[in-house]
Amino acid sequence: MKKIKMGMIGGGTGAFIGDAHRRAARICNDYELVGGVFSSNPERNRESAAKEGIEPGRCYDSVDAMIAGELARPEDERIRIVSIVTPNLLHYPQAKAFLSNGFHLVCEKPMTMTVEEAVELEQLVEKTGLTFALAHTYTGYPMVRQMRELIAKGILGTIQRIDAQYYQGWINAIIHGAESRITGVWRLDPKNAGVSSCMGDIGVHAFNLIEYTTGLEIKEVLSDLNPVKEDIELDLDGTVLLRFNNKLKGVIRASQVCGGLENDIVISVYGSKASLRWEQENPNYLYMFSDTEPVRVYKPAHAYNEKMAEEGHTMPAGHPEGIYDALANIYRGAAKSIRGEEFTPGEFPTVYEGVRGMKFIHAVVSSNAKGNIWTEI
Amino acid sequence: MKKIKMGMIGGGTGAFIGDAHRRAARICNDYELVGGVFSSNPERNRESAAKEGIEPGRCYDSVDAMIAGELARPEDERIRIVSIVTPNLLHYPQAKAFLSNGFHLVCEKPMTMTVEEAVELEQLVEKTGLTFALAHTYTGYPMVRQMRELIAKGILGTIQRIDAQYYQGWINAIIHGAESRITGVWRLDPKNAGVSSCMGDIGVHAFNLIEYTTGLEIKEVLSDLNPVKEDIELDLDGTVLLRFNNKLKGVIRASQVCGGLENDIVISVYGSKASLRWEQENPNYLYMFSDTEPVRVYKPAHAYNEKMAEEGHTMPAGHPEGIYDALANIYRGAAKSIRGEEFTPGEFPTVYEGVRGMKFIHAVVSSNAKGNIWTEI
Amino acid sequence: MKKIKMGMIGGGTGAFIGDAHRRAARICNDYELVGGVFSSNPERNRESAAKEGIEPGRCYDSVDAMIAGELARPEDERIRIVSIVTPNLLHYPQAKAFLSNGFHLVCEKPMTMTVEEAVELEQLVEKTGLTFALAHTYTGYPMVRQMRELIAKGILGTIQRIDAQYYQGWINAIIHGAESRITGVWRLDPKNAGVSSCMGDIGVHAFNLIEYTTGLEIKEVLSDLNPVKEDIELDLDGTVLLRFNNKLKGVIRASQVCGGLENDIVISVYGSKASLRWEQENPNYLYMFSDTEPVRVYKPAHAYNEKMAEEGHTMPAGHPEGIYDALANIYRGAAKSIRGEEFTPGEFPTVYEGVRGMKFIHAVVSSNAKGNIWTEI
Amino acid sequence: MKKIKMGMIGGGTGAFIGDAHRRAARICNDYELVGGVFSSNPERNRESAAKEGIEPGRCYDSVDAMIAGELARPEDERIRIVSIVTPNLLHYPQAKAFLSNGFHLVCEKPMTMTVEEAVELEQLVEKTGLTFALAHTYTGYPMVRQMRELIAKGILGTIQRIDAQYYQGWINAIIHGAESRITGVWRLDPKNAGVSSCMGDIGVHAFNLIEYTTGLEIKEVLSDLNPVKEDIELDLDGTVLLRFNNKLKGVIRASQVCGGLENDIVISVYGSKASLRWEQENPNYLYMFSDTEPVRVYKPAHAYNEKMAEEGHTMPAGHPEGIYDALANIYRGAAKSIRGEEFTPGEFPTVYEGVRGMKFIHAVVSSNAKGNIWTEI
Repeated sequence: MKKIKMGMIGGGTGAFIGDAHRRAARICNDYELVGGVFSSNPERNRESAAKEGIEPGRCYDSVDAMIAGELARPEDERIRIVSIVTPNLLHYPQAKAFLSNGFHLVCEKPMTMTVEEAVELEQLVEKTGLTFALAHTYTGYPMVRQMRELIAKGILGTIQRIDAQYYQGWINAIIHGAESRITGVWRLDPKNAGVSSCMGDIGVHAFNLIEYTTGLEIKEVLSDLNPVKEDIELDLDGTVLLRFNNKLKGVIRASQVCGGLENDIVISVYGSKASLRWEQENPNYLYMFSDTEPVRVYKPAHAYNEKMAEEGHTMPAGHPEGIYDALANIYRGAAKSIRGEEFTPGEFPTVYEGVRGMKFIHAVVSSNAKGNIWTEI
Repeated sequence: MKKIKMGMIGGGTGAFIGDAHRRAARICNDYELVGGVFSSNPERNRESAAKEGIEPGRCYDSVDAMIAGELARPEDERIRIVSIVTPNLLHYPQAKAFLSNGFHLVCEKPMTMTVEEAVELEQLVEKTGLTFALAHTYTGYPMVRQMRELIAKGILGTIQRIDAQYYQGWINAIIHGAESRITGVWRLDPKNAGVSSCMGDIGVHAFNLIEYTTGLEIKEVLSDLNPVKEDIELDLDGTVLLRFNNKLKGVIRASQVCGGLENDIVISVYGSKASLRWEQENPNYLYMFSDTEPVRVYKPAHAYNEKMAEEGHTMPAGHPEGIYDALANIYRGAAKSIRGEEFTPGEFPTVYEGVRGMKFIHAVVSSNAKGNIWTEI
Repeated sequence: MKKIKMGMIGGGTGAFIGDAHRRAARICNDYELVGGVFSSNPERNRESAAKEGIEPGRCYDSVDAMIAGELARPEDERIRIVSIVTPNLLHYPQAKAFLSNGFHLVCEKPMTMTVEEAVELEQLVEKTGLTFALAHTYTGYPMVRQMRELIAKGILGTIQRIDAQYYQGWINAIIHGAESRITGVWRLDPKNAGVSSCMGDIGVHAFNLIEYTTGLEIKEVLSDLNPVKEDIELDLDGTVLLRFNNKLKGVIRASQVCGGLENDIVISVYGSKASLRWEQENPNYLYMFSDTEPVRVYKPAHAYNEKMAEEGHTMPAGHPEGIYDALANIYRGAAKSIRGEEFTPGEFPTVYEGVRGMKFIHAVVSSNAKGNIWTEI
Repeated sequence: MKKIKMGMIGGGTGAFIGDAHRRAARICNDYELVGGVFSSNPERNRESAAKEGIEPGRCYDSVDAMIAGELARPEDERIRIVSIVTPNLLHYPQAKAFLSNGFHLVCEKPMTMTVEEAVELEQLVEKTGLTFALAHTYTGYPMVRQMRELIAKGILGTIQRIDAQYYQGWINAIIHGAESRITGVWRLDPKNAGVSSCMGDIGVHAFNLIEYTTGLEIKEVLSDLNPVKEDIELDLDGTVLLRFNNKLKGVIRASQVCGGLENDIVISVYGSKASLRWEQENPNYLYMFSDTEPVRVYKPAHAYNEKMAEEGHTMPAGHPEGIYDALANIYRGAAKSIRGEEFTPGEFPTVYEGVRGMKFIHAVVSSNAKGNIWTEI
């Protein structure tokens, strides 16, 4: 099948997340990286492009130059999708520019800095009919997809409690280091990171996993955030009480200061008949608890799984796939959408999830700022 | 060694918790059950006593009769310690009566119905110098004790987040059963259970584990409780935000409606250098996470453990001990105290933990009732 | 219910295994320890008896004195069951003496030193109709019993492979210690330990678990044993190929030199439709694997379990029980047998399992000595 | 960096293993697939090539045509490495042809049908100095590499026992299916599969993991193989006793008939001071057991790991990588070798491992055929 020509903004050599996106695009094999703006530093831009085998004429100086250059090409040679892996601040203007000129997008999260920007992008996507995939990578895991499908089938009875955790500890090395590195860390700087560190970077993943797996919308939040140290402005830690409706409540717990924890995401949905639990560090297991039968452990590559879960795992049973394969599944879903193939909602997160995420982050920060009061999303 | 003569109030044949206390007392082998009031029903009282091999003259009709009967005996034949395993409502008057007459006590939790009652018992214990052991059974596990000792040594650096979970699902079968059994269930009835179901029964264990393992005091709580169904008065589910001081926060999550969950207690203490996690359903493992070395998994029966942890496990390494052995450790600690032997604080929970627990329960219920506001403990 | 009067041979203060038996007898609450010979050292014998609250007249100097003393008492005051927890060498003569005089027995394993002795005891038990319980403790775990019952129901299809492991590492500290302690260790001394160390002490448990859970008999073995060090006579490590019949094979793996391992027993039975696996260090989980459904994890205290499994766990679900509770289940089974209550075969291992074990040990040692050839059990 | 031009033999659309190799080559990003013979069926060959974007002139009809066609091109446009993913029978002639004409190779295992063929390839590789990478994929996992490095550092003391398991259950569906599919299954047909099914396909991986992680050579084997059903010629199950030297023994256990098992590989190396265990289905954990400290759990992406382990994991800690990433690591190692970059022995399995594997398979089959006797490798 003909590959979809892809461009990239950001992701110069050494940038972790850009590399992940390129890998994912190669794994799913629907794309061909042919151009981009890999760095604002011209030298690094050229070197990065060369390393990726990009022809020099398609290593652009700016987003504008890239748009102009690509639009000047015949349609079937043109870049059709752009992967945006720049710092948070730049997502919105870049996404807007590309959408306005007819390019499909994969965009890193958080999608924008403000809710208004997010809503504007949503309207642009609706208007243009372009494909917009947001990199909520964890939704690409087969067992997260299985969880979503099982819940949609009603296997849990009435959902009675939802609990999502995202704990890391990496920031300890920075904030407790011999010489304070707080000033230079962009995640701790509101100008670059936006209104939140912990909730904006990882809490929002927990939020997304809840809405993704259950299909429910969180209505209100009450948060208590913690910058942990006197000289830090943004939250590094926090707990968010959730209300879905009168009788369904839940909690999101997120932290970047849990010493020694790596990427400890757990999403649990508890129902009147049964419950499901998934843990990111062992992503190929999905646990179902019930009073009336032994614990069930779902694993990929079995006929008992739902279709979207099965399609997200290509190896035979017992051969673990990982995070790159999850991201590749999202790229695969976007490719189906671009090509007009049939796909299941949930194969890739959309601009809608981006809007929800921004609303969540801002509601959480607002609740905390106002003294831990209930705040609508 | 001469056994300590023990009496029991409650725990008639078939009562689960009374049986657990008798087992624990037999395991630790410091006690001899010689009398008691096993049931308010005279027939059942007699039968239960007979089943336990109690001589008829020491199967009493009432607490008063028991006190009178025992005080009439020569001191060295007299019951010295009484195990109170009656419904919550009775703990306070019974404990007060026994303490006032010189009997040591083991008491089930929650210790009383109100904070005032709890404080009164605390004062009585202080005045009399009697031994009062509260059945916070989970503190009897060797690896919980190890956690406490490791934290006391400062192994975690600055504690930055504390998270305790206690999830069960047993009440689903009751509240969603074919015919509503809500009315007949004492845990759902404020007259018998007190102001709370979930927080009073299990949330308080999570609270106790936090204070037990860290030695810290929770200052304020903000709770959101959930009765889950319209026709239920008490909480069956809830989340409690915690504040220890300005820069240390945490959360307690407890629920009785997590379908299929059994007794899923997890206590995690996260520090700047390392973190510890313990899970009740696999009690012989204690996990330590750190950025700078592989995860450590502590297990009982090793020279690397602290003294109190080691004394709480009698089998060689790799032979798992369980919940009865944990309760036996608490009985063992109480015996040391009664006999005037040396013991480590933490070998059994005291009346102090009982007061703290009652304050917690009432603060949590109050915070929720007032609209989820911060409430001092 | 009236307690069964129990005596004990061996198990003086500090002896680990005697203490375990006394605990188990107390937990199950069917017994009352009233006499015995606790040590061949008169002083230690007296002290141990006193510590257990034995009246001086029932602390006997010898097995013969004990038999005479007890037979002289009125029948309803007499010891009915004797727990033999002496070194291996003494099991046979002591068991024979007690059986010949009408006493029921609990006996530590290995039951005897030779197959002939074992067969003689078996005949004595058959002739007298007395209850003989062998301490294959692991068969007392609820999930081992569940495994047996599930296999008996045919849930696995055709059994196609059986694999049992028993790995420990404790002997490393002895054989690699600063000064060789080999000479003084009774397990390494053929006069005291018999023909085998590793297979006689732990391999036989793996063997027993196979026959217990499957109901099958191993027909032939081919073993390769390893004394590991030049100056050691007995095996500390070995692998045993198993043949059940022409199309069913298996393996037993046992070792005392696996550095850092504790008591790592795993029994796996693999069938054409499904497989079961149980691990001793997490005894409250039983795993079922099948191609057509998620992994099942059985846990105690659920209505989905078989009767014998359920009766072996007294706490509600999620409250882990351990090794003492497993041994107590065996004592409980023996009590049912003595009292003439109904019980399920499998509630306690019998003299038959003792004979099978001795045959296994001797066949394994013989196979190895003859150059690793197939040897009938 | 300039990509290495790669060809492929076999791996037509739908062939599982060919797809895995292409993915791995894309992930590591050192290669560019430019030609090959994807199927012996001309139609399928063309379609497969087209699907991979191969230009028609490089979709060859045969290995000979491919060699001639590529040699006719200028050196810097020529395919430099060929990935052989054909059925076992073809590996040898194809590998020989390519090596003889100066092409580097990645070859699926088992490398050949006979030991003689394997030795011949080894000599060819030595003579030509070409890079030959054998697809023992599991050696590409970071924690397997960590295990090798830790053992090389002597962390275990004296190695005293080695135990490797490879259990699957997939063949049950075939041999017990409604209509016998035995005849049509190439793995069960000696003409295509060679002398062994289970040992040749998976036992050899267990063998390879032992020699890879320990650096030791197995000297002798004694095997007991099991075809499980009357009408099956090759082994589907077996156990192999191992001897390394007089005091070090071990065992390999492999089976394709363990109902419900997926790809259950476990490699354990037990030493006098400590032991290591790794499990393929949770590949990002490596367990170290020791008597004197808590269990250690090594995970990827930590400074405490050895260099080769760290280089094999590109994501930050806690982001699991999987089997494709492991195979990509092997492709990465081969690329280093081809490019003359420095690399650590162990970054890819070589023709030497292929010779060892063939010797193992043939020794195991021979031992069994001769009646389970010790056979030199």
